[in-house]
Amino acid sequence: VSRAWIVCAGDELVSGEVTDSNGPRLASFLQEYGIRVDRIVSVGDETREILAELSRATAMADLAIVTGGLGPTSDDRTREALAMLSGSEPVFDEDLWKQIQKHAGRPLSGSNRSQAYRPPVFSPLVNPAGTAPGLAGEIGGCRVVALPGPPHELRAMIDAHAARIVEDLVGSLPPATTVSCFGIPESQLEDALLEFAQSGENSGGALTWHTRAGGGRILLRLSGGDAPARERNIAHLRSIFGPERLAAGEATLAGEVVREMARRGFTLAAAESCTGGIVGAMVTAIPGSSDVFWGSAVTYANDAKVTMLGVETAALGTHGAVSEEVVKAMAQGVRARAAADCAVAISGVAGPGGGTPEKPVGTVWIALDAESGGTARCLSLSGDRERVRRSAARESLILVRSWLALLDSQ
Amino acid sequence: VSRAWIVCAGDELVSGEVTDSNGPRLASFLQEYGIRVDRIVSVGDETREILAELSRATAMADLAIVTGGLGPTSDDRTREALAMLSGSEPVFDEDLWKQIQKHAGRPLSGSNRSQAYRPPVFSPLVNPAGTAPGLAGEIGGCRVVALPGPPHELRAMIDAHAARIVEDLVGSLPPATTVSCFGIPESQLEDALLEFAQSGENSGGALTWHTRAGGGRILLRLSGGDAPARERNIAHLRSIFGPERLAAGEATLAGEVVREMARRGFTLAAAESCTGGIVGAMVTAIPGSSDVFWGSAVTYANDAKVTMLGVETAALGTHGAVSEEVVKAMAQGVRARAAADCAVAISGVAGPGGGTPEKPVGTVWIALDAESGGTARCLSLSGDRERVRRSAARESLILVRSWLALLDSQ
Repeated sequence: VSRAWIVCAGDELVSGEVTDSNGPRLASFLQEYGIRVDRIVSVGDETREILAELSRATAMADLAIVTGGLGPTSDDRTREALAMLSGSEPVFDEDLWKQIQKHAGRPLSGSNRSQAYRPPVFSPLVNPAGTAPGLAGEIGGCRVVALPGPPHELRAMIDAHAARIVEDLVGSLPPATTVSCFGIPESQLEDALLEFAQSGENSGGALTWHTRAGGGRILLRLSGGDAPARERNIAHLRSIFGPERLAAGEATLAGEVVREMARRGFTLAAAESCTGGIVGAMVTAIPGSSDVFWGSAVTYANDAKVTMLGVETAALGTHGAVSEEVVKAMAQGVRARAAADCAVAISGVAGPGGGTPEKPVGTVWIALDAESGGTARCLSLSGDRERVRRSAARESLILVRSWLALLDSQ
Repeated sequence: VSRAWIVCAGDELVSGEVTDSNGPRLASFLQEYGIRVDRIVSVGDETREILAELSRATAMADLAIVTGGLGPTSDDRTREALAMLSGSEPVFDEDLWKQIQKHAGRPLSGSNRSQAYRPPVFSPLVNPAGTAPGLAGEIGGCRVVALPGPPHELRAMIDAHAARIVEDLVGSLPPATTVSCFGIPESQLEDALLEFAQSGENSGGALTWHTRAGGGRILLRLSGGDAPARERNIAHLRSIFGPERLAAGEATLAGEVVREMARRGFTLAAAESCTGGIVGAMVTAIPGSSDVFWGSAVTYANDAKVTMLGVETAALGTHGAVSEEVVKAMAQGVRARAAADCAVAISGVAGPGGGTPEKPVGTVWIALDAESGGTARCLSLSGDRERVRRSAARESLILVRSWLALLDSQ
């Protein structure tokens, strides 16, 4: 196994102004190749400090990646540190300067010229997203790569160069399949993966997995094995959690809903109480959602449920706003007004206040209404107010996907 | 100036699964005391590796803070590393074990007993949010503090202990005033602060500042000087950017709107097109918003604007959905239905598609309607779809605050 150290240079990182996202992004990338990251070090902008970290990294690791400190300003010191570490004076690279100017597509100032200097033992890496080129070389048997610090430039550099550099080092990436999981607790996902791994279906244990949570989903990467084994594993997860909680690739839940509704020419409407507009915000975050989404009646007050959705005052009085009767009436009400193919509604107790023994904090009713009929479910969600609201919004969109899956199966 | 190193232990940090937020949080805290952070190092869970980093940190810094590796499981190795570094065997602390059990309020398993071991030269720090106590001691003249890794536990430990420990080291914090800034570009804020600093109003330059962006606001911390000088500085910002863009302390924009509306017994309604529910989601994220917020008509489709808000089809045809006429009609429509004191409406081109030469991507109309009359503004926002939407939602709430400020001044 190869070992890597990551050094992130920037005063804004050690002052706490900015949270470093480059280190985790690179680590996650290297992890897929089976490269173990030993350290992610944030350090300020001084040449001496960057040099100290790079010197330690090159002594300890097979691969040292440094981000930041490649810009045109005087506090961008990585180029200088690399030259000192490789024991050579930076040289001006005429071709590189032409390339930088050409790529920028605008006249560059003198300070940008500094970006065309490089230690002679390093080759430049073209930056598709900015003026600062990267650098790649070797110091004392350690492969050293310098990449620009702005996260969008780093992402572009990873896409453009990182695979080639890493494959030189450790060979090409094992075949893999990525799946997005929605509303599945990480521990349950792990249990299901372990169960499959122990089932004997896993062609001799060659298949491994790696999960990453964030942005309201878990990205699951299945590596190794053969493609059919990976597909059997995914089918196993689908049978446990339901097809509505999985999607191929790096997908978003709202993106899948919009895509699947658009394919059928369906329209969607929502009625939200405790989620307060989160469902609408999630769906309309997807470009092209206007083909599908009519709108959402965010009826936070009871009076709004009556005025905007035609929920009966008597139903609110008898059953309360958080009830099967009211959430169904909300879904029916917005679907009728929107003349939509499908409508979802959410009403719940998000907390911290408002809980009762019968309806404690976390009690959320969700409903779906369609021409073919309606359905409602009661959820018991845990976590703080925002977590309850996010989970409830997610579950309402999962309900749409399960309705679509049911249509497909008929 | 004292120098600090921060070491964050956890396999999940170097694998890229989790982005370290503890390092930046601690750095930002130390920064306020004028303590310079030289390194933030993420390292895996092995004792040997944690020991290597702590050994370097104690040799280089006046203060070494290590987070993580204090849990009850066998991969929590910080306790062991600290014992090795201080050259002593961990001892079982009977009092600490009683305290941990008492604090947990439930029977603890044998593995939790490991948390009651500590190196003899370290004192325990009570953890108000979990079972893992922190540890504080000194090694080779360097103050060493170990804190638990889960971010909510770390926050609780900072609140409970960090100020005392740091004040032992560098003296108490200079007096400071914190202000939240909404929708002010960071560069403009910097310019305004520089202008004040150079104005001679700043009692000899004693006043310094520190900004931190995130969560839709910039937190500005003014330190040093005397209280009147800090207040004059804030008054200067208020006069430049408007009182509606500033709030005392660590505030949120929606929280201020809810508080200010509730104080007057006012109610609020919204009508959203391109923001798709973000305004509703922001306002209802605030506990107690139900006292103020009626709801939001998320009218994404033109048909929804007609059905839910009574916008005239002719107006949509003549002026388009993104126009002063339509956004005013949206605000009036929702205010009439809600019988609210104040209503805001948003309609714009969030992109990436939908732009025209007359109404390019980023063109957003916002309107406010109240009994005393209405107003509308056209914004030209930059950034991607989500950024345009977030800015537009923010500006609509800032419009509410400027309406309230106007009422106050009358």
